Amino acid sequence: MKIIPLREDVSLKRSIDQGTEKQRQSVVSILQDVKERGDAALRHYTNEFDGVDLPETRVSAQEIEEAYTAVSDETLEIIREAIDNIRDFHERQVQQSWITTKEDGTMLGQKVTPLDAAGVYVPGGRAAYPSSIIMNVVPAQVAGVRRIVMTSPPQKNGKLSDIVLVTANELGVKDIFKTGGAQAVGALAYGTETIDPVDKIVGPGNIFVALAKQLVFGTVDIDMIAGPSEVAVLADRTGKPSYIAADLLSQAEHDPMSSAVLVTDNKELAEKVSEEVTKQLETLPKKDIAKASIDDYGAVYVAETMEQAVEAVNELAAEHLEVHTEDPWAILPQIRHAGAIFLGENSSEPVGDYFAGPNHVLPTNGTARFSSPLNVEDFTKKSSIISYSKEAVKNNGRKIAAFARLEDLEAHARAVEKRMEEYND
Amino acid sequence: MKIIPLREDVSLKRSIDQGTEKQRQSVVSILQDVKERGDAALRHYTNEFDGVDLPETRVSAQEIEEAYTAVSDETLEIIREAIDNIRDFHERQVQQSWITTKEDGTMLGQKVTPLDAAGVYVPGGRAAYPSSIIMNVVPAQVAGVRRIVMTSPPQKNGKLSDIVLVTANELGVKDIFKTGGAQAVGALAYGTETIDPVDKIVGPGNIFVALAKQLVFGTVDIDMIAGPSEVAVLADRTGKPSYIAADLLSQAEHDPMSSAVLVTDNKELAEKVSEEVTKQLETLPKKDIAKASIDDYGAVYVAETMEQAVEAVNELAAEHLEVHTEDPWAILPQIRHAGAIFLGENSSEPVGDYFAGPNHVLPTNGTARFSSPLNVEDFTKKSSIISYSKEAVKNNGRKIAAFARLEDLEAHARAVEKRMEEYND
Repeated sequence: MKIIPLREDVSLKRSIDQGTEKQRQSVVSILQDVKERGDAALRHYTNEFDGVDLPETRVSAQEIEEAYTAVSDETLEIIREAIDNIRDFHERQVQQSWITTKEDGTMLGQKVTPLDAAGVYVPGGRAAYPSSIIMNVVPAQVAGVRRIVMTSPPQKNGKLSDIVLVTANELGVKDIFKTGGAQAVGALAYGTETIDPVDKIVGPGNIFVALAKQLVFGTVDIDMIAGPSEVAVLADRTGKPSYIAADLLSQAEHDPMSSAVLVTDNKELAEKVSEEVTKQLETLPKKDIAKASIDDYGAVYVAETMEQAVEAVNELAAEHLEVHTEDPWAILPQIRHAGAIFLGENSSEPVGDYFAGPNHVLPTNGTARFSSPLNVEDFTKKSSIISYSKEAVKNNGRKIAAFARLEDLEAHARAVEKRMEEYND
Repeated sequence: MKIIPLREDVSLKRSIDQGTEKQRQSVVSILQDVKERGDAALRHYTNEFDGVDLPETRVSAQEIEEAYTAVSDETLEIIREAIDNIRDFHERQVQQSWITTKEDGTMLGQKVTPLDAAGVYVPGGRAAYPSSIIMNVVPAQVAGVRRIVMTSPPQKNGKLSDIVLVTANELGVKDIFKTGGAQAVGALAYGTETIDPVDKIVGPGNIFVALAKQLVFGTVDIDMIAGPSEVAVLADRTGKPSYIAADLLSQAEHDPMSSAVLVTDNKELAEKVSEEVTKQLETLPKKDIAKASIDDYGAVYVAETMEQAVEAVNELAAEHLEVHTEDPWAILPQIRHAGAIFLGENSSEPVGDYFAGPNHVLPTNGTARFSSPLNVEDFTKKSSIISYSKEAVKNNGRKIAAFARLEDLEAHARAVEKRMEEYND
């Protein structure tokens, strides 16, 4: 790994696929077609892109039952425990509606309401990611969303993967449809004969899915468009090189464009981690991907002080931040920007990917400066509550009318004065 | 007003200005220019669009002092009381960081951190809107944002309006710059020699400002792009026609494209409100705007039952919803979608625009289905906290590694197993 003295300039090299104009045009026309022709369009594109003709897109009870035969008891148990942990964590995020009352009869408040319906996109492709299903479905369920719709592109055999079906069923998701790509996003946003539209679409996908989500945003809400995964490790002389190297590589194996960066005040550690990365890399099955990531997007920054190192990781605002220092909790108050903060040498980043409880859908590409992990709140919205009494209008009406006139809004002033007239009768 | 029997089809006619391709191109080139030339570009565009050459964009202490001489004591008092009310309400929205601990040493949590910096755009033009400054600045301040930057286009005399300066100063905003339009958005997103970049840009503006915000989204966060203002009134036979008509008109005077709709189960009320609207409209100074709005976007829907009427207002998902019924609080649990809910005949919508406390920046265009009023949360972000102990890794490491292998991520599995190896020594 490159070892770089940390001066003022620290940056996490990042790269996001924005799609080409041709891809965008293709997505625009797919969305339009789904809007107009509904299920017929879905069938057409599933045939074209997934190479299978499906007269019926809804997953049947029988398909789910069959999927269970292919999943081991051990796997099933791990998935159930992961769901329990993740549900437990998200239940702590639930917000309450509240009101406040004043003696003049004024009542003000905030009502928290779940979205009516959410759509969860589950990508197809080489590997199945049951953790992604859990992380996207659980916060919606905990929020109280009444209807959760899952869509995923069918395999060549016309089915979804067993582990996807089993995970969805363990979560209690009932509406599962075999459709993927931009067409699935269109179906979730506009609805078809068999798929009712939803209010928000979440879940990862390829560039066509990402573009489609951007295009339907406004008609529905969407989650963030995720860039390649990132980890920053902050370490002092107590950091264990073998742990840190293993964690850097676990990000690097995701994608040749993943970023893995160490920031430390200890030159010796920097060198040892770099050596360990080279050593551990050799034996990885996804060695080529990880090597490309480490070579192109990896770096070890050596700071002169820990203060400087901490400020550097704040500037990076990484998706994942690991803190391998003598007293990691003492660092926590100084961390301003990070999607998830892993404290201490035992808190390897993969712990948070599947099992611990917090969400693994995290802000990438520096957006941790202003964005949060996927959250129960993302599946609720608030409404302000305003209840004014006669007395409150009497006390404040004159001031409200004056404020309205300050903004040249006469009808606003009169609406309040209309009440005051009658009270003076 | 049109009186329409409510069947299945209820809709709030809406219209959003998306901008033309020419406007978009113009904004793209302005943003690029500000990115490259900084202050020089700002000065250029201020000269071009606002017709004034300003070597110095920062508002001086002297300008603020002078502004106070033009604002009456009564106005100042009203503004101070409004700020107090709005601050009091927003302080109730503050969220705490939290952790949860398990006996095996696991600690999980969520850290809430304010954004480092926020930019508030204040439009220029005919009228000044001090309420808009208060509504955008207060939640950022309550969230704990350390740096709040305000920008607004200068008047022909090279200054900002007195009321804008006084309101900003009363709020304690220190960094105020005389620059507007797309160029101001560019300065806030990318920074210039005199304006440091921010993390989030909020505040209303014309189509150029809206397009610029959309284009810088991702580099920084933005608030929602607001459409024309909307009110839906839900009323039964107890509704007072003169109040309801006045409130409908107070929305209608905003913009010819504002929507004002009444939904009631009482035909007599529908007719009386319609008559009152015609009557009250005649005497309004902004009669032409209000009439265009009522004619084009106004409607009275008559439902057969209150249940049907309630479901209709949920479908409308209006920015403002007024409930004029015998027992308005009994309706509240049934309201799923609305930006702000005004309960009872005294809760005229203008009460919430300036003074009561809740935010007046609300979701328009049906986005109340999934969006919330501007909130303290919008100026914070969360980071997950994950601290695993040796014991927690011992207990769960095997399961986490198995889950990682299920997703074909070998380096993830090994990162966890690397810890387990050492524990077994």
